[in-house]
Amino acid sequence: MLLSGGLDSATALAVARARGDECRTLALDYGQRHRAELLAARRVSAALGAVEHRELKVDIGALGGSALTDARISVPERGGDGIPVTYVPARNTIFLSLALAWAEVLGADTIVIGVNVIDYSGYPDCRPEFIAAFERLARLATKRGVEGRAIAIDAPLVELTKAAIIRRGLELGVDYASTVSCYNADEAGRACGRCDACRLRREGFAAAGAADPTRYQSVS
Amino acid sequence: MLLSGGLDSATALAVARARGDECRTLALDYGQRHRAELLAARRVSAALGAVEHRELKVDIGALGGSALTDARISVPERGGDGIPVTYVPARNTIFLSLALAWAEVLGADTIVIGVNVIDYSGYPDCRPEFIAAFERLARLATKRGVEGRAIAIDAPLVELTKAAIIRRGLELGVDYASTVSCYNADEAGRACGRCDACRLRREGFAAAGAADPTRYQSVS
Repeated sequence: MLLSGGLDSATALAVARARGDECRTLALDYGQRHRAELLAARRVSAALGAVEHRELKVDIGALGGSALTDARISVPERGGDGIPVTYVPARNTIFLSLALAWAEVLGADTIVIGVNVIDYSGYPDCRPEFIAAFERLARLATKRGVEGRAIAIDAPLVELTKAAIIRRGLELGVDYASTVSCYNADEAGRACGRCDACRLRREGFAAAGAADPTRYQSVS
Repeated sequence: MLLSGGLDSATALAVARARGDECRTLALDYGQRHRAELLAARRVSAALGAVEHRELKVDIGALGGSALTDARISVPERGGDGIPVTYVPARNTIFLSLALAWAEVLGADTIVIGVNVIDYSGYPDCRPEFIAAFERLARLATKRGVEGRAIAIDAPLVELTKAAIIRRGLELGVDYASTVSCYNADEAGRACGRCDACRLRREGFAAAGAADPTRYQSVS
């Protein structure tokens, strides 16, 4: 399981645990400016009963090109049309590739990823057609695939609205206060309340009719 | 361009340079035991006139599962049937993903990779169908692809024998003495002469009717 520490991947983990999967979680340290994510991923993994949690460094921040990894590019307060500057080139391709390597070493049958395409930021690598193409690639790329025991890619939230994701997670006991979605989270994991990720999250809680447990930075 | 410091990727770079491409080279530091590769990649990149060379760390060695990254697994002297223990799970998927990120940041049109499938070790991620599947994935995964300017994956050596690769490289002035193919190369880049990579390389020079410039470790 790819676990970012955000709301979606926490819910995906809860879904996998609820159906009885033995889960191992992988967080990627890619030079993201929202480092509180990594701490959140550790908390969420333990709270939801994953067997193991790993962090792997991959220095895609050094390649630049995204507001999420390059301090010189500002995170916008509101998404416009098209793919925003918070898009990290090839991020989910890289993350799934690393998960594929670990899955093959472990002998795991499935990689779970929390992407979704309804209330989202327009990133191309969150779409179902991307997930299907990666699954096909994984079959061709690996020893497992050649041997006829291909590793599946499961995106259990891909067609759910943010509100539906939150309702499902609350049913399964996810503590969303310990997740971090904000692109500008401070070191304590408190959210800015203004970026696109904060907006989608806040609107999701409102639409789900649930209290928003997010800890926000105090506004002076 | 993905540049490993080996014979194949050096030749692929020479092919791309000969057709007039402006090339930037990427070497991956993935915990491989043959560290001399990384030094060889730097030399080859400069010698063949790449505009820029980068090294990126990605700690797939920490995931284990391969004789190339795990000191506890021996590199066999001769390949048997099937996929050997030197297979690194998902290696080329990870490498192409990272190259894809850099290509998108740079605005590059093509990623060049030196894989080939004739005289090779049987790795699934060296086959043309893998390359085609990655190209399709890249179109779906990136902002570039969504905008109709997909990044191509070019494997110019994929259907060539080792001998044909060597002949082509010699025509183009590749100095194979500065390349390192051996899985057990020492720090000076001298080859063991016994592993599968050494065997394929030596047989290639013989079949090409060319002198083998490889520096071998002295046998006491």
